[in-house]
Amino acid sequence: MVTPFFRYKILLASQSPRRQMLLSHSGFETEIVKIDVEENFDANLKAHEIPVYLAQKKNAASDLPLSENELLVTADTVVWLGEEVLNKPENMDEAAEMLRKISGHVHTVYTGVCVKSSKTTHTFYDESKVYFYDLTEEMIQYYLQQFKPLDKAGAYGIQEFIGYVGIQKIEGCYYNVMGFPVSKFIQELKAFR
Amino acid sequence: MVTPFFRYKILLASQSPRRQMLLSHSGFETEIVKIDVEENFDANLKAHEIPVYLAQKKNAASDLPLSENELLVTADTVVWLGEEVLNKPENMDEAAEMLRKISGHVHTVYTGVCVKSSKTTHTFYDESKVYFYDLTEEMIQYYLQQFKPLDKAGAYGIQEFIGYVGIQKIEGCYYNVMGFPVSKFIQELKAFR
Repeated sequence: MVTPFFRYKILLASQSPRRQMLLSHSGFETEIVKIDVEENFDANLKAHEIPVYLAQKKNAASDLPLSENELLVTADTVVWLGEEVLNKPENMDEAAEMLRKISGHVHTVYTGVCVKSSKTTHTFYDESKVYFYDLTEEMIQYYLQQFKPLDKAGAYGIQEFIGYVGIQKIEGCYYNVMGFPVSKFIQELKAFR
Repeated sequence: MVTPFFRYKILLASQSPRRQMLLSHSGFETEIVKIDVEENFDANLKAHEIPVYLAQKKNAASDLPLSENELLVTADTVVWLGEEVLNKPENMDEAAEMLRKISGHVHTVYTGVCVKSSKTTHTFYDESKVYFYDLTEEMIQYYLQQFKPLDKAGAYGIQEFIGYVGIQKIEGCYYNVMGFPVSKFIQELKAFR
């Protein structure tokens, strides 16, 4: 049986295995493409402005020719805590520090998505609030030793141990927290009809 | 490395493979036990009262001896839409009907949990609101044919296709929607210290 989204082919410019999994579990044919671009941004950008800027920058850097059914999708996810962005940690000490900051607080996860067809380009973002219980040092150390926090914004994956035991509630899309707001993406596809 | 929850052994009276997965991914040693009880309830019960009643009823029906580190855990999950409970559908037609009801609306998922140790019994529940976009008939038919809606309250799994493409946002714990509010469970374990 064909999926409801068989009409599209997604060219996904992302190294995140989670993004590809989310799109393929949603019934999209996906192909990974590579776009080389420096992921720096103006320090004055705040909250959703950062991933929106980076998704657009990545998309604009590609001159890949697109056929009628193909969509070039770029995305960026940031964790925003207070007035600070938490990117991917550079080492395990920084990862531990991030988890201690997240513990007992609420933060917001923003994902910016830029979609280009042969005819037009469309950008949107989604946001999810994530409320953490107080994490014990035992939980943090167990997570750091058993999982891979270094490739994740904010040093955690909601779909891993620390997400199971530490998150009281979310307000927003769970898959946005994982890295791609797939249900909103499907709504936004109306821009390409 | 031992998990933060190595002190406990969970005797889980549930046929749901998702509940066992959620507890084991959270670092609990689990063993499935069988408790035979009729899962009927008074039609006057509403919302959280239903899964709380059923979790307590299942727990009370067991005379399993418990050693000091063992916890007998029973749980029940219901989908509550408007003033109506959506249980597991009896056939594919009923499953389709449930998904059409859920489409474009918000419902609440309640899980009641009853925990018994050798010394005391403790009951709690968690609730998550789930906001669905309008589902197309194409999405519903694809889901029904590719997945197994009959063993799921409300005829859907949030961790499957229809949860990826159809859910706009949730307010509450995602794992509660899957069937067990594992982070709240860990908080409630304080009753057993």
